[in-house]
Amino acid sequence: MRSSLDPHRNFRTDPSTKKAQDGNRIIERSSAPRNPYAHNIPVTDFLSNVSRFQIIDSTLREGEQFANAFFSTEKKIEIARALDDFGVDYIELTNPCASEQSRKDCEVIAKLGLQAKILTHIRCHMEDAKIAVDTGVDGVNVVIGASPHLREHSHGKDIAHIKETAIQVIKYIKSRGIEVRFSTEDSFRSDLVDVLSIYSAVEQIGVNRVGIADTGIVGCDIEMHLHDDSGCAIANAYCALEAGATHIDTSVLGIGERNGITPLGGFLARMTSVDAAYCKGKYKLEKLQDIEGLVSEAAGISIPFNNYITGFCAFPRQYSCKWCNQ
Amino acid sequence: MRSSLDPHRNFRTDPSTKKAQDGNRIIERSSAPRNPYAHNIPVTDFLSNVSRFQIIDSTLREGEQFANAFFSTEKKIEIARALDDFGVDYIELTNPCASEQSRKDCEVIAKLGLQAKILTHIRCHMEDAKIAVDTGVDGVNVVIGASPHLREHSHGKDIAHIKETAIQVIKYIKSRGIEVRFSTEDSFRSDLVDVLSIYSAVEQIGVNRVGIADTGIVGCDIEMHLHDDSGCAIANAYCALEAGATHIDTSVLGIGERNGITPLGGFLARMTSVDAAYCKGKYKLEKLQDIEGLVSEAAGISIPFNNYITGFCAFPRQYSCKWCNQ
Repeated sequence: MRSSLDPHRNFRTDPSTKKAQDGNRIIERSSAPRNPYAHNIPVTDFLSNVSRFQIIDSTLREGEQFANAFFSTEKKIEIARALDDFGVDYIELTNPCASEQSRKDCEVIAKLGLQAKILTHIRCHMEDAKIAVDTGVDGVNVVIGASPHLREHSHGKDIAHIKETAIQVIKYIKSRGIEVRFSTEDSFRSDLVDVLSIYSAVEQIGVNRVGIADTGIVGCDIEMHLHDDSGCAIANAYCALEAGATHIDTSVLGIGERNGITPLGGFLARMTSVDAAYCKGKYKLEKLQDIEGLVSEAAGISIPFNNYITGFCAFPRQYSCKWCNQ
Repeated sequence: MRSSLDPHRNFRTDPSTKKAQDGNRIIERSSAPRNPYAHNIPVTDFLSNVSRFQIIDSTLREGEQFANAFFSTEKKIEIARALDDFGVDYIELTNPCASEQSRKDCEVIAKLGLQAKILTHIRCHMEDAKIAVDTGVDGVNVVIGASPHLREHSHGKDIAHIKETAIQVIKYIKSRGIEVRFSTEDSFRSDLVDVLSIYSAVEQIGVNRVGIADTGIVGCDIEMHLHDDSGCAIANAYCALEAGATHIDTSVLGIGERNGITPLGGFLARMTSVDAAYCKGKYKLEKLQDIEGLVSEAAGISIPFNNYITGFCAFPRQYSCKWCNQ
């Protein structure tokens, strides 16, 4: 039964191919055979981006919100260079409005000339947006809470006001010629109609990516930011890619608020089992252990005994070597 | 829209209710409202066991295969008592044929008079089965590899031979009046037809549970044993329950071969977010930290910084308290 299934047959004729060539998405898709036992072998869904995702590493933004993380400018530069060398597509930095030091760090890292695009992450305010674009970053990630809970207890604004402010901020960032992503915080506790009406509005004015949405209503890319409180961040990231998301937020060792977000290493363990050629062609997997060592030292934490791939007991040596080098 | 959905409406009329009352499955299902934002609210699938699962804790079997774990008899007794007090439904022990000490440990723990049922885990051999039932355990978990890879490189037997041996071993264990589960190792790399034909054969002779199968063909309970190499063990356990599985194998902190299996704490973090009343009514969640401390000390490992629920940065204190006590 398996031999009659060609995992690539749909890609060759699927309607997303042209879009990929025309739009912002990367178009590489590995030609090597996938793991024949992988979950996605009989993919007949043209939405799936399992073999053409991009990574937005947030160690220097979400990771800075981890309880133990206090990164110096020098350490941030070292981590940014290591992530860039590893091959992540984007590096997200703390809001330059958080402190004068954060602003200076944005400027310094934006000027390093890295291959990865440099993003910063701001509230949906014009004041934040103005400071952010002046740091020289390649793009700005804008966020605002849309759930009833956050609307009541955080900013106190209604949906009409959120939409109006979002359009103003996005138009300003676009006018400065850089990328802009718009995301609703607490999306899964928001009313779906509210979220979709906001995303629909921002997509019409040309936002590059939205945080979370059903692909049926948006033509821009979709980025997922997933916390791991109940251990499902990696699986949710994978399912999101299957459903049409294009970008996954990660951090090294998953550091972030509470017990963190999708970990870079664990996410790539999952994706490599599905499309090894794509992952190995794009990311320097053999550098993962070094980056994890760098960040664990900088954040003052031990690498968990059961860490994916690089944990001391994770894989017998022959499998680890195979993972990195074949 | 949400208010019109009653998560229990299907349960009251679903065809599995009668089976639950007659069969081995537990029939409690919480009457408290579920988390209104939980994924499974509009459950219309009578197969789902999200609110009536049982835990088979394998810290003293799978966990013993963890690189660092060498538990003394006294430590095994302490861990078994703690797991029993916590409320796990089953405690699985290492094969009594593994060593004379393992056999004695099975006998000692089977005689403790715990509420949890005591299982041991054996190869699909008559010699193993005879030794296992003589230890006084409440049930035996039988396993054999059915994938082409294991059939070629491990035991060298064909499907007909596997089926014949399985029937002989299961009949013998049943004749001694104790529970028996039959599982194929490496199930996801096995031919589906092979696996289903074996499960169908053992179900016809009255096995209590099978390891993994499509519920369409079996009437017995279904147990899931999931490794966490690529970070999806908890999500897979949850999805398995939704699809009709009834029992989940866990270990404390997830310790096991390589980087382990579904962790007890992480699994209950996930399930508590879906049906808090069921989890809090059945398991002493407030004891989780103590059990994790006991096992981490016994196995000589640190509790990961990002451990679910009990990690030092996992939840702000008010949420942890809420998780345990409300």
